[in-house]
Amino acid sequence: MHWDQAKETFIYQQTEASIKWLSQFSNSDGEGVTRLVYTNPWLLAQSALQEKCEAMGLETRMDPAGNVFASFKGNEQGVVLTGSHIDTVKNGGKYDGAYGIVAGLVAIKFLQEYLGIPKKTIELVSFCEEEGSRYPLTFWGSRLITEEVDAIPSVQEDKGHITLKEAMNDVGLSIDELSLIKKRNDIQAFIELHVEQGMRLEANEKQIGVVEQIAGVHRFTVTVTGQANHAGTTPMTMRQDAVYGASQMIQWVTEQAKQYGEPFVATVGQMSVKPNVPNVIANEVTFTVDVRSPQPDTLQTFKEEMTTVFKKIAVVNDLDIVVEQWLATPPIMMDSELTATAKAICDEQQLSYQMMTSGAGHDAQIMAKHYHTALLFVPSYRGISHSPLEHTSTADLAAGVKVLVELLYRLAY
Amino acid sequence: MHWDQAKETFIYQQTEASIKWLSQFSNSDGEGVTRLVYTNPWLLAQSALQEKCEAMGLETRMDPAGNVFASFKGNEQGVVLTGSHIDTVKNGGKYDGAYGIVAGLVAIKFLQEYLGIPKKTIELVSFCEEEGSRYPLTFWGSRLITEEVDAIPSVQEDKGHITLKEAMNDVGLSIDELSLIKKRNDIQAFIELHVEQGMRLEANEKQIGVVEQIAGVHRFTVTVTGQANHAGTTPMTMRQDAVYGASQMIQWVTEQAKQYGEPFVATVGQMSVKPNVPNVIANEVTFTVDVRSPQPDTLQTFKEEMTTVFKKIAVVNDLDIVVEQWLATPPIMMDSELTATAKAICDEQQLSYQMMTSGAGHDAQIMAKHYHTALLFVPSYRGISHSPLEHTSTADLAAGVKVLVELLYRLAY
Repeated sequence: MHWDQAKETFIYQQTEASIKWLSQFSNSDGEGVTRLVYTNPWLLAQSALQEKCEAMGLETRMDPAGNVFASFKGNEQGVVLTGSHIDTVKNGGKYDGAYGIVAGLVAIKFLQEYLGIPKKTIELVSFCEEEGSRYPLTFWGSRLITEEVDAIPSVQEDKGHITLKEAMNDVGLSIDELSLIKKRNDIQAFIELHVEQGMRLEANEKQIGVVEQIAGVHRFTVTVTGQANHAGTTPMTMRQDAVYGASQMIQWVTEQAKQYGEPFVATVGQMSVKPNVPNVIANEVTFTVDVRSPQPDTLQTFKEEMTTVFKKIAVVNDLDIVVEQWLATPPIMMDSELTATAKAICDEQQLSYQMMTSGAGHDAQIMAKHYHTALLFVPSYRGISHSPLEHTSTADLAAGVKVLVELLYRLAY
Repeated sequence: MHWDQAKETFIYQQTEASIKWLSQFSNSDGEGVTRLVYTNPWLLAQSALQEKCEAMGLETRMDPAGNVFASFKGNEQGVVLTGSHIDTVKNGGKYDGAYGIVAGLVAIKFLQEYLGIPKKTIELVSFCEEEGSRYPLTFWGSRLITEEVDAIPSVQEDKGHITLKEAMNDVGLSIDELSLIKKRNDIQAFIELHVEQGMRLEANEKQIGVVEQIAGVHRFTVTVTGQANHAGTTPMTMRQDAVYGASQMIQWVTEQAKQYGEPFVATVGQMSVKPNVPNVIANEVTFTVDVRSPQPDTLQTFKEEMTTVFKKIAVVNDLDIVVEQWLATPPIMMDSELTATAKAICDEQQLSYQMMTSGAGHDAQIMAKHYHTALLFVPSYRGISHSPLEHTSTADLAAGVKVLVELLYRLAY
């Protein structure tokens, strides 16, 4: 395709406007964007997206999980899918997930404008939930459409004690209809664009990251139980202090991860203490451990060491401990042909790029197990992610959309 | 006084019934008794107490802070005060604070029945707040009536973001009227009965603990600030992890306290993490440190060491730290004459007793700075405190009330 100033400007302006448009859908809790699955801002965003796509003449639908699809119908069989997730973390930014949806939207708009009806259908997907921020439902949208979900946790409660079933009801969805979602066999490729959420592209002054593999992720919830007692009268030697026990475990996690070395990471991001008052020794602490590596063996080893060490700390401190794993996503390779094509496009268009691994999980890793999948990154300012300060320049965003347009052209026309 | 079976039974039955009666005033959040200052259960308890005292012919009043006083008027000048605090910790027991109020109530009832009008007025006090569980207002009631409160934290919020000013409004009190409370000069003695909240009386098989001094208490809120970032893509070596920093600090507190040895104690009972999600490195952790010792020098030394060590940990981990002290109660001696009288009563009545130090703070330590004060303990089952499992046998409770009756007789008749 020949790129002139008008086309570059079209991409730039549409991208800038669409990012801004999507970022307005947020609750008012603190800074940044907060759009948690099955809340009102989430519903407003998905509905507005459907409306916008319909105004473009696309056929849209929302599936029983709340995933939104918008089709730019082709003349022949076969579908090329592109998109990302509509949900955010609490107090997140304007780009994580949103960019992949915007990129697809702008690419389709561009192709409608400049190339007309494709051979294959080009479909935009806005996955309902990926982050697992409100409920432990990481990659919920992509796992449901690939029939990877075995058990539906309908009575799982969020922090406000609203069950998943109730939350879905609140936005007009029924948890009982999730079983109606069947895996599609018409998807010939899936392409996801995403912000890097790390600092390598910026450090290396590259505009595009062509991802070859995604790190595996393990997530655990650890519950440490002691004995509540008076902070003033209980001798130090007679305590069963869950906060003290948990602190030792948390310190071990961080220090062991450092020992393992890059790109291995392990994080304790969430903690809750009971009864959580200043003058009472805590009888219960619950915390999460998030572990990532591109090596499956390493993930397994760390899990075993962690369980052993935590049990030891518990015994020494007269505590009970339960370690529960609720996520075990293995490392995943992207499609080599698609990846090579993306690389070739960057070369042709003379865009600065590098091949890389993703430390962040993406819907692409679920889709890659079932369909030919590619994942492309654009830089994140100072690697900042999951924060209101998250930022990517419009020029970088537009470069990514340009590669997507070229890829879709090659696949669908 | 001569004690016969009828009198012993009177004390026993009245004590048992009154403990049960007062324990009904609780919110319905979880187990045990929860009666937080300026909440509805708190108001119901204070109102019911006033009613019960008025039915006994006592003159009652509630001061601007919500402290309740009930007077058994004497023929001459001077007041002997007895009582404790009406508030509890979250999910506490039936005895902490409640016992001192019940003991006073039953003792007055007994004296009315068996001895008639006293010379000095015997007054029951139900302090509005002592624990500091809802707001950092430890010894609030006793500090206000002794004019020890300099600044009123009217905009301090509880966990539900209700300010102190609003909370007082909710129960018909006005924060602006607190300045009307003036220190009384008619109180000739203050006696507090309380459960031990420790395990020594039970271990030594003693029914009564005559307290000679109360440990000093320091409380701090520590805020550790880092940088929120993606758990998957941020290398371990480039993190500013507030949870990791806080864990090291918390571990130090516990281990240093063990080094100092009994009776020194230090506790981290309360923590909060932000943003508190599994896949985001925490940018802020706030935790409390509760430190107690009967030695003022030791308290000072620990504070200095803690501040130094915490700053070091913060620097090494690229974190910011603020250590804020909000409680600094020095160790306090009880009145030697009153204490000697209590001891003599135990000898005469052939009650098993011991002299001791209190690791727990009590309104008695505030009152002792202004009035002749005595503090008496009864045993706590397995030292359990601040828990629904808190327990003292009625026989032990009654023994304490008996000593109180004798003490009030000696002081007021």
